[in-house]
Amino acid sequence: MSKKLTSRAEDYSKWYNELVVKADLAENSAVRGCMVIKPYGYAIWEKMQAELDRMFKETGHQNAYFPLFVPKSLFEAEEKNAEGFAKECAVVTHYRLQSDPNNKGKLRVDPEAKLEEELVVRPTSEAIIWNTYRNWIQSYRDLPLLINQWANVVRWEMRTRLFLRTAEFLWQEGHTAHETKAEAIEETKLMNGVYAEFVENFMAIPVIQGVKSESERFAGAEDTYCIEALMQDGKALQAGTSHFLGQNFAKAFDVKFANKEGKQDYVWATSWGVSTRLMGALIMTHSDDNGLVLPPNLAPYQVVIVPIYKNEEQFNAISKVAEDIIGDLRDRNISVKFDKRDTLRPGAKFAQHELQGVPVRIAIGPKDLENETVEVARRDTLTKQTVILDRVSVVIEDLLEEIQGALFTKALNFRNEHITPVDTFDEFKKALESKGGFISAHWDGTTETEDKIKEITKATIRCIPLDAKEEEGVCVYSGKPSNRRVLFAKAY
Amino acid sequence: MSKKLTSRAEDYSKWYNELVVKADLAENSAVRGCMVIKPYGYAIWEKMQAELDRMFKETGHQNAYFPLFVPKSLFEAEEKNAEGFAKECAVVTHYRLQSDPNNKGKLRVDPEAKLEEELVVRPTSEAIIWNTYRNWIQSYRDLPLLINQWANVVRWEMRTRLFLRTAEFLWQEGHTAHETKAEAIEETKLMNGVYAEFVENFMAIPVIQGVKSESERFAGAEDTYCIEALMQDGKALQAGTSHFLGQNFAKAFDVKFANKEGKQDYVWATSWGVSTRLMGALIMTHSDDNGLVLPPNLAPYQVVIVPIYKNEEQFNAISKVAEDIIGDLRDRNISVKFDKRDTLRPGAKFAQHELQGVPVRIAIGPKDLENETVEVARRDTLTKQTVILDRVSVVIEDLLEEIQGALFTKALNFRNEHITPVDTFDEFKKALESKGGFISAHWDGTTETEDKIKEITKATIRCIPLDAKEEEGVCVYSGKPSNRRVLFAKAY
Repeated sequence: MSKKLTSRAEDYSKWYNELVVKADLAENSAVRGCMVIKPYGYAIWEKMQAELDRMFKETGHQNAYFPLFVPKSLFEAEEKNAEGFAKECAVVTHYRLQSDPNNKGKLRVDPEAKLEEELVVRPTSEAIIWNTYRNWIQSYRDLPLLINQWANVVRWEMRTRLFLRTAEFLWQEGHTAHETKAEAIEETKLMNGVYAEFVENFMAIPVIQGVKSESERFAGAEDTYCIEALMQDGKALQAGTSHFLGQNFAKAFDVKFANKEGKQDYVWATSWGVSTRLMGALIMTHSDDNGLVLPPNLAPYQVVIVPIYKNEEQFNAISKVAEDIIGDLRDRNISVKFDKRDTLRPGAKFAQHELQGVPVRIAIGPKDLENETVEVARRDTLTKQTVILDRVSVVIEDLLEEIQGALFTKALNFRNEHITPVDTFDEFKKALESKGGFISAHWDGTTETEDKIKEITKATIRCIPLDAKEEEGVCVYSGKPSNRRVLFAKAY
Repeated sequence: MSKKLTSRAEDYSKWYNELVVKADLAENSAVRGCMVIKPYGYAIWEKMQAELDRMFKETGHQNAYFPLFVPKSLFEAEEKNAEGFAKECAVVTHYRLQSDPNNKGKLRVDPEAKLEEELVVRPTSEAIIWNTYRNWIQSYRDLPLLINQWANVVRWEMRTRLFLRTAEFLWQEGHTAHETKAEAIEETKLMNGVYAEFVENFMAIPVIQGVKSESERFAGAEDTYCIEALMQDGKALQAGTSHFLGQNFAKAFDVKFANKEGKQDYVWATSWGVSTRLMGALIMTHSDDNGLVLPPNLAPYQVVIVPIYKNEEQFNAISKVAEDIIGDLRDRNISVKFDKRDTLRPGAKFAQHELQGVPVRIAIGPKDLENETVEVARRDTLTKQTVILDRVSVVIEDLLEEIQGALFTKALNFRNEHITPVDTFDEFKKALESKGGFISAHWDGTTETEDKIKEITKATIRCIPLDAKEEEGVCVYSGKPSNRRVLFAKAY
C-alpha cells in the first residue's frame, strides 16, 4: 500500500478520488470519461444489485432486456426527452472499419459502411422501450406492465468523476405502463419508497424523499420524485429518481389500450432508476481519513481474520482456531476471509483492510492462543476488544448489526444537523457558506427565482420534501408568498 | 394464444422463429439485428447467469466491469484480433446531436462534435482489458489474475436470427493472466470443462469438448477450445469457447511481469465466453411441435397449478388445496405458479403452459376434490398421472429430477446416433445429406482441404475432440495420411 490518503479537511475532492483508486474500487480508463470498475468495487455493486433486484421482484416487476441502440427517428419522437439528452449522446454512424490505405497497419472507418440512420447509444431507454410496448399492449388485460432492465447507458458528460458522473455507467431502469393516472402516480411513489428503503436500510444512508421542481425534472416527465442524501462535505447527492411520465411517451409512440369500457385510451407511464452513482454516495457518506467504511450489508466480506505468527507451528495452531471461527461465522451467514498471505506483514494487512473498509477484523496471535481469546477490531470506530473464543461468533453477529445501525445513526445525525431553516436571503447565503448542507427556505415557485438563486449561490432546489408541512411564508429571494419550505443545497 | 406452431418436419427454421416469439422469449426490435429479450426469456437467461456465476466464483474468478467502447488505436493494436472483428463493428464517431436546421423537429449529428478518435463498440473486450491489465500486473505476485465480465457486445452481423446470431448480444467474457504457458493452457481447459459441465448438467444438452482447427480459431488466439452441441435438425451449434491467447495480447499491450527470478517476461493469457446464444441451443435441443420444453433447472417456474371450476365455491375449495401444495413444493425449493387468471379457460391455459415449456402441470378439478387427488402432467412426454394429495410434493420432486435426466438422455441418444464415421468422401457426402449430424472423418490437417470440403458440402470442422483416439488413416478428401478423426458438420 502506498502512502496515506489526503485528509478530508485538506481536500475533500482529492480525498475522494484517491480513496476510490486506493481502495481498489474503480479507476479511469483509456476511454474519456469511462471507468473500469475493479473487482472489489464490483463486488459491492453486485450486493446492491442483488438486494434491489429482490425488492423489484417482490413488488411484482420482471426483468427484460432492450437494445443498446436507439435509432435517431425513435430517439427524437418524444421531443422534451430528445432535447434533454441530444447534447450528450454518443452516436454510431458506421458499421465497419477497413485497412487505412494511407497508414499501414492502421484501420479507418469504411466510408461505404455508413448507416442509413444513425444510432444513438442509449442515454436512457424510454424511446426504444415505448416503441416496443406499442405491440405488447392492446387491452387493459395487458396492464399493468411492470418491467425492469439492468443495463449500461452512455451520457457524454464533459466533466466526469469516478462513480459520480461517468460517460458510461451501470444502472437499472424500470419502465411501467398503467391504465390510470392514479395508478401510475402510485407506482412512481412506490418505487421512490423502495429506493429510500434500500438506501437507508441496506446502505445506511439517510435520505429525504421529495419531488423535483420543474427545472430539475427528468426530460419528458410530468413529475420527478427523488431521494436526496447529504455527503460529509455538506453537498447533496441525488441517489435515485422515479418519474411519473404522464401519457407523454404513450402519445409519442402511439401506445393505446382498450379500457374496461372498450374505449381506446393512451397508457400512463413511469420510469425509475438508480445507478453506480450510489457507489459514490456510499463512499462519501461513511468513509474517513483512514479509508473506506462499509456497512456490513454491502461489504464483500464482513470479517477478515489476520494471523500473527513467528513460525510455521504458530501459524498452524492459529489456522486451526481460525478455521473453527470461519465455520461458526458462515453458519450465521457471515462472510469471512482468512488473510493468510505470506507476502505481507500483519501491519500492512491491517492497513489494507482498514483502507478497504472491512467492517470487522479479527487478529489472532500466540498470546491469544494461550488465553483462548482473539482481538476483535471495529472499522467504523477503530476500537478493539478482546473476546473469548467461545463467544466470537455471537459477539460478531451482534457487532455487525450494531455497526450497520451506528453508521446510519451517525449519518442521520450529521444530516439533521445540516438542515438549516432560514427566512432571509442573507441567512440563506450565510448558512450555505458557513455550514453547507440543506437550506430549508420558502420559495415562490417560479423557475426565474430558482435560476437567480442558483446563479448567485450555486445552490439548487434539491426537492420539495414529501413530508413538508403547509406553512405561510415569503420567498427568501423575491418576497412573494409561499406556503411550503423547499430544500436547497449545492449538489453533486 | 394464436394458432399452432409450424411443425419441425415442415420447416425447422420457421418452427424455431415462431417458437421464440410465441413462447414469449424474444422478438426483433426496431434496431436492425438487435433483439428484445422478453421477461420469460430473460428469466431463463438469469438462471443460466446465476449458475455460471456461481461456478466461476467457485473456480476463483471475480467479476469486474470494463468500458463499452474501445478507442480505435487500442482496437487495432493486436493485429489478428482487429482484422477478425473490423468488418463487423459499430463505430461511434460523434458525441452530440443538434436540431436539424433543414428539418423542423428533427435532430442531426452535430458536425462540430466529431470525436478526435473513433470509438468501437466492443465486439469482445481483449483490447480494452489488456490495456488495463498493463497497470495491474507488475510481478508474479499479481498473478494469476482471474476476472470475468457480464456485458453486452456488438457484432454487426448481416444475417441475424433471434438468440443465435444478433448484432447485440449478452454474454460473459473471462479474461485471465498467468505466469506460465502451462498454467494458461490449464485455465483454458478448465473453463471449457466448466462450460461442458454447465451445459450438460444444468441445460441437459450433451456436448463434445474439442479444439478448433486453425481457420475456426478466435481471432488472436493460439488455440480455441470449444463445446459443440447437436440440434434436432442435425446441425451443430458451438455453445461456448475458451481461448489460449499465448502472449499475443501481452505483447500487443506490453504487459510484462517480474517473474520469480526477477526477470521481465510477457504474461500468458486466456479468454472464454458463452452468450445468449445458449438460449438458442436450449430451445433447439429439447423443444417439440407443441412448443418449448424446458429442463427443470432452467424453468422460470417448474410447476404450474391450473384450477378447473364452475363456480366460486369450487374455486375456493380448489385454491385451498392448491395453497397447501404450493407450501409443500416451496419447502422443497420447487418453484410453482398458481394460474388463477379468470380471463382464460383451462384449455387455453394448458396450451400456453405447454407452449412455454413448464415442466410439470398440476390440474385440480371438482372430481379431484372428491377423490383427494390431482392430475399431474409432464411436459416432455405429454403423459399424465393421477396422484393422491398426500404424495404430490414427493412425486413432483422425483419427477423433476427424472425429467432433467430424461431430457439429457434423449438428447444424448440423438446426438450419439448422429455421429457417423466415414472413410471416403462419397460416404461423407451421403451421410451428411441423408442424416446430417457429426461426420467423423480423417483429415490431412490443412486449411486448404478444410476449405475445399466446406465449399463442396457446407460442412466445417466443428472440432478435434479432446478424447479422439490415435488412429492411422487417410484424409477423406486428399487421401493424405492422418492419425486422428475430426468432427465435421453443418453448423449454426
